Amino acid sequence: MRIELICFGSELLKDKVNSNVCHIAERLERIGLTLDRVVTVGDARREVKFALRDSLRRAQILITSGGLGPTFDDLSCESVAQVLGRPLQFSPTVMRAIVNRFRSAGLEMPEENKKQAFLIRGSQVIVNRVGTAPGQIVKDRGRTLILLPGPPKELIPMMEDSVIPYLKRFSKSSILSLTLHIFGFPESEVDERIKPVVEKNWDQKDISVTFGILAHHSIIDVKVKVQGKSPQKCGQVLLSIKKELHGILGQDVYGENEETLESVVGKILKKRKETLSIAESCTGGLIADKVTDVPGSSQYFLEGLVTYSDESKVNLLGVRRETLKRYGAVSEPVAKEMAHGILKRSQSDWSISCTGIAGPTGGSSTKPVGTVCFGIASKHGVSTHTKFFHAPRPETKQKSALTALDILRRTILY
Amino acid sequence: MRIELICFGSELLKDKVNSNVCHIAERLERIGLTLDRVVTVGDARREVKFALRDSLRRAQILITSGGLGPTFDDLSCESVAQVLGRPLQFSPTVMRAIVNRFRSAGLEMPEENKKQAFLIRGSQVIVNRVGTAPGQIVKDRGRTLILLPGPPKELIPMMEDSVIPYLKRFSKSSILSLTLHIFGFPESEVDERIKPVVEKNWDQKDISVTFGILAHHSIIDVKVKVQGKSPQKCGQVLLSIKKELHGILGQDVYGENEETLESVVGKILKKRKETLSIAESCTGGLIADKVTDVPGSSQYFLEGLVTYSDESKVNLLGVRRETLKRYGAVSEPVAKEMAHGILKRSQSDWSISCTGIAGPTGGSSTKPVGTVCFGIASKHGVSTHTKFFHAPRPETKQKSALTALDILRRTILY
Repeated sequence: MRIELICFGSELLKDKVNSNVCHIAERLERIGLTLDRVVTVGDARREVKFALRDSLRRAQILITSGGLGPTFDDLSCESVAQVLGRPLQFSPTVMRAIVNRFRSAGLEMPEENKKQAFLIRGSQVIVNRVGTAPGQIVKDRGRTLILLPGPPKELIPMMEDSVIPYLKRFSKSSILSLTLHIFGFPESEVDERIKPVVEKNWDQKDISVTFGILAHHSIIDVKVKVQGKSPQKCGQVLLSIKKELHGILGQDVYGENEETLESVVGKILKKRKETLSIAESCTGGLIADKVTDVPGSSQYFLEGLVTYSDESKVNLLGVRRETLKRYGAVSEPVAKEMAHGILKRSQSDWSISCTGIAGPTGGSSTKPVGTVCFGIASKHGVSTHTKFFHAPRPETKQKSALTALDILRRTILY
Repeated sequence: MRIELICFGSELLKDKVNSNVCHIAERLERIGLTLDRVVTVGDARREVKFALRDSLRRAQILITSGGLGPTFDDLSCESVAQVLGRPLQFSPTVMRAIVNRFRSAGLEMPEENKKQAFLIRGSQVIVNRVGTAPGQIVKDRGRTLILLPGPPKELIPMMEDSVIPYLKRFSKSSILSLTLHIFGFPESEVDERIKPVVEKNWDQKDISVTFGILAHHSIIDVKVKVQGKSPQKCGQVLLSIKKELHGILGQDVYGENEETLESVVGKILKKRKETLSIAESCTGGLIADKVTDVPGSSQYFLEGLVTYSDESKVNLLGVRRETLKRYGAVSEPVAKEMAHGILKRSQSDWSISCTGIAGPTGGSSTKPVGTVCFGIASKHGVSTHTKFFHAPRPETKQKSALTALDILRRTILY
């Protein structure tokens, strides 16, 4: 089953990121289908037709994105019709839907949008809940063509609602997948640790198991994909692999699938009915920003102080001038007093502090750019930690924020 | 001059975003060249060779990314050699560079990396400062092939250092471009306002002028591209268009090209030798995070308080319980007291406050989800503002943070 994707749009050959490829590829993969080739071309008539003819020579399923708009340079529908040798046909139902969409926004339909009601004869309409361009599924001599609009906010719901359910019939196997998230270890170390599980499970009877490791911003994702004819057997295999991985990785796994460090920390705090406050310096509010990205975080997050100047560390957190003078603002003693200060001030159960040199300047030989100190405080006491990051300013902020959350997570769970 | 790009890598057909396309396309555009087609294929030998042969039928310049690694599924170099009918040749210089790279990291070179020292005969090496895979430029029967590694952190510097300077010879015209950033207006309104400038300048003698509008997160980018044979004339035309646009858009333009709202606010504060403090609620630290993304922000940013609970608004900022009770936490009177409170506490010249309902829950009929109140204070007084955003939680946080910075910018400049 060969599947190809053609993306139409001159803007995709300029400076626009094409997120549709990634989305379509991932959704296909999850139902056990694989994208074999992606072609991106501009809106020139010759390019569009050439790309269509070329892909149709090989592909059993051809998906197109883009070129369904109302303007003269939206060529996909008419080009597909020409390449397949089929006429376009006016659809009164689609026309009504387009008119109504404009009407409900208090507008009259511009004349040019009428074009979008002409569909390839024999095609099945894919309803677009967000925009005016309908999608189409066309069957032609054993091949299936799926025409989708380019804007992701239109394409994504159409993939979910119509395309994926339709394409499931072409998938001969069940696929189950699992992603485990680990923070703060080198990719190679995680690779080494999970090797026994990988080697044991790589090839099973009637079941194909694939492992993958993906690293981004110090987060390591271990991906497991189990594919086979029996959904039940796939489920059993995945569960046993999951147990083995958790057995080996233990608390180094902070979450699964959609979970983030901040959502996991939030879940733990909520469950324990405990509260959190944060005192930041070099992360400049990023830790609090992450924590408050989680809906409902107001249940456990009380307050965050971004004490960027020495003065504010003294005034807001009660850091002693002597400590600042003796050890410098980036030091474990200062991180300790910051964590203590915010805990006391906010009366929270837990606090995090973070002070460091995000760069690009401000480092010294003993404290190079990228030195970051952390403190975690609770009624049980304070622990402090120092890390060194070798990264540009924004990445150092990111890594510091994630490190702070991970240390908090491990401390609470300990 | 037809230019095509082939991206090799099975991961690009799964769930990995391919940022190379966007980068290469943009860099080419800036020197007056246009990418005509992009093909993405996996690491299967048949696919790789087919894609190469197919593109070489049309393209004068063919760029490839990926497939230069040391492992068995890295096929680009040998496939290009086969398709062109040229042998691979061992390069002792490249070998030494690879060995040294490992040595400087305290490692021995693994046997498999030896593969990377075999280059296509007659090719010119593109030095890789970041990784082990060298790039190559191969001239063949009037065509130019450029082989680059896949990881963006290797590809980007190689594009800058070698590929773009090399390709400039193929560009017959000068290109100058300018991007103006505007915040908080609908795209259609900006479009309408700049229409006179667009219509006046669209077609000039010997000079091609292109206008574009791009909207993302309430930021509208107006892009102008001037292309022509004489660099001097291009410069004159761009300058006059720039003046006309500034004349029309005035202070609604917050910055140009690489500038961000936070960098512009920082530049103004630095110039005036004034300081800033921030009191946030619903943005949860995001405003301070943005402000501290700017290197050197410690010169003007004193402190930021994330007062998420009512209690912390009272204790840290001196917001009166009566105000909270009477108007609610999300109200202009509370925003006003927050801005006042942080200004007084930090002794800064300016302060921003922000309190709102980021959602997804917590709204009411009078204050729906997405209601956000802002305060800007200085010794001259406080001004307050209310905005309504219809967006998911993270986007509401983003828009609120940008709004706060833009109101501050306009207030200071007023």
